[in-house]
Amino acid sequence: MAHLRRLSLNQITTPRWTVKEAAEACARRGIPSIALWRHKIAEHGLGDCVSAVNDAGLHVSSVCRGGMFPAVTAEERRKNIEDNFRAVDEAAALNADVLVMVVGGASPMGIEAARQMVRDGIAELVPYARSAGVKIGLEPLHPMFAGDRSVLTTVSEGLSIAQQYPLEEVGLVLDVFHIWWDPCAMQQIAATTDRIRGFHVSDWPVPLPDVLLARCMMGDGVIDIRGLREAVDRAGYDGPIEVEILNQAIWDEDPDSVLDRVIKTFEIHV
Amino acid sequence: MAHLRRLSLNQITTPRWTVKEAAEACARRGIPSIALWRHKIAEHGLGDCVSAVNDAGLHVSSVCRGGMFPAVTAEERRKNIEDNFRAVDEAAALNADVLVMVVGGASPMGIEAARQMVRDGIAELVPYARSAGVKIGLEPLHPMFAGDRSVLTTVSEGLSIAQQYPLEEVGLVLDVFHIWWDPCAMQQIAATTDRIRGFHVSDWPVPLPDVLLARCMMGDGVIDIRGLREAVDRAGYDGPIEVEILNQAIWDEDPDSVLDRVIKTFEIHV
Repeated sequence: MAHLRRLSLNQITTPRWTVKEAAEACARRGIPSIALWRHKIAEHGLGDCVSAVNDAGLHVSSVCRGGMFPAVTAEERRKNIEDNFRAVDEAAALNADVLVMVVGGASPMGIEAARQMVRDGIAELVPYARSAGVKIGLEPLHPMFAGDRSVLTTVSEGLSIAQQYPLEEVGLVLDVFHIWWDPCAMQQIAATTDRIRGFHVSDWPVPLPDVLLARCMMGDGVIDIRGLREAVDRAGYDGPIEVEILNQAIWDEDPDSVLDRVIKTFEIHV
Repeated sequence: MAHLRRLSLNQITTPRWTVKEAAEACARRGIPSIALWRHKIAEHGLGDCVSAVNDAGLHVSSVCRGGMFPAVTAEERRKNIEDNFRAVDEAAALNADVLVMVVGGASPMGIEAARQMVRDGIAELVPYARSAGVKIGLEPLHPMFAGDRSVLTTVSEGLSIAQQYPLEEVGLVLDVFHIWWDPCAMQQIAATTDRIRGFHVSDWPVPLPDVLLARCMMGDGVIDIRGLREAVDRAGYDGPIEVEILNQAIWDEDPDSVLDRVIKTFEIHV
């Protein structure tokens, strides 16, 4: 099993908590890391979030998210890049391990054009992130999000972009929910050597109840989470493992019970 | 544009019609081919379906579907194979170009075990199909169906199974809805040379409203349908192109209007 020292609470799993509440809940349980979402950072203010995680003695495993590069007009694309610069600033202030990139979808410009806009956007972002000392992590999303969220859908595709940059600057964030179906997942993970900057777990329920809010607690789905975690470890990653679950039923539960269950299922299934 | 002589109505697009009504509606419009689903064949009886398509002078582009091989017990897997034999019989009686395989999902046995059951099931089915003179077409499904419907998710994966058998016995059925997101789709299609046995079109709406009933009419989504059709043509396929749309709103429409729109959007987008 993965050591509990690697557990990080991705705060989208317990969205009813403020950053401060989530940080304190982690600290009370000895969970050493937390991942923050930018809409939560905006809600509380960056300074307060920095204080909240520092006061709780927590490490920030990631900030979610930059990306969303494709847009129809040059002006919109420029605005998207500017927003990515702010995401870098926030990741730097929080001393996060990585800024997660959800690169953006194919609509309405078409998938080939969107892929080019993603490559262009990353090329523009890298120098800014480098000066801020922030690592970029490209996250391949499940292909069901290719239309609206991410034309980047496989580990290989992410790696081929990351490898255009120095190891320390651009890496990958892998999430079992997004990659478990891939017949080449294991070989692709093995090929990422030292490029993995984050690892996320949840599970894939059958049948899938929804597109966006589909994930379930580890063990309640069909993914071989431990097999993927071991493959990621073999590829040289030994950092935090975020539990990231977008699921309305779990969001409606008491967040303290959810976090207790996160710990329990992490021990059993990760 | 693709010639209208290649248009085939996959009857799931107009499920309110009986086989006979659908066949007659195609004949009235000069659509030369139709694809039948087995629950509809069961509803009307195989003999009546054969008469309906023959009386209308139609060609059957495919029977949907065999497959669904994985199951927990050997007894269930045996029942699934027997059901596939009946699917072959039906495809033979209808003189269909291909029997489409939706191979089955990862739940509950896990994706690796399910993949093995799929390979074993196909190996058992091929000799039976060969004696019946029925071609098998492996259809990679979108990865969002990997849990419950198809662990086969990419063109490459389908090709690597098909290539274990003679060209005439096992091929591929490609559907733009299932493969459009793949960064390697074009290369993978090019590699299939002479293995493609069917081609399906519809479109991918953004946002995706549902998992199963998500597809939309050609032109209402983000897929480069013509680009994929041209790639399939270059790989040596010149057979029927099925319009296969699972969408509740379209199912609720008058099927005659739907079929008229199928012809119009086929001409514009395929």
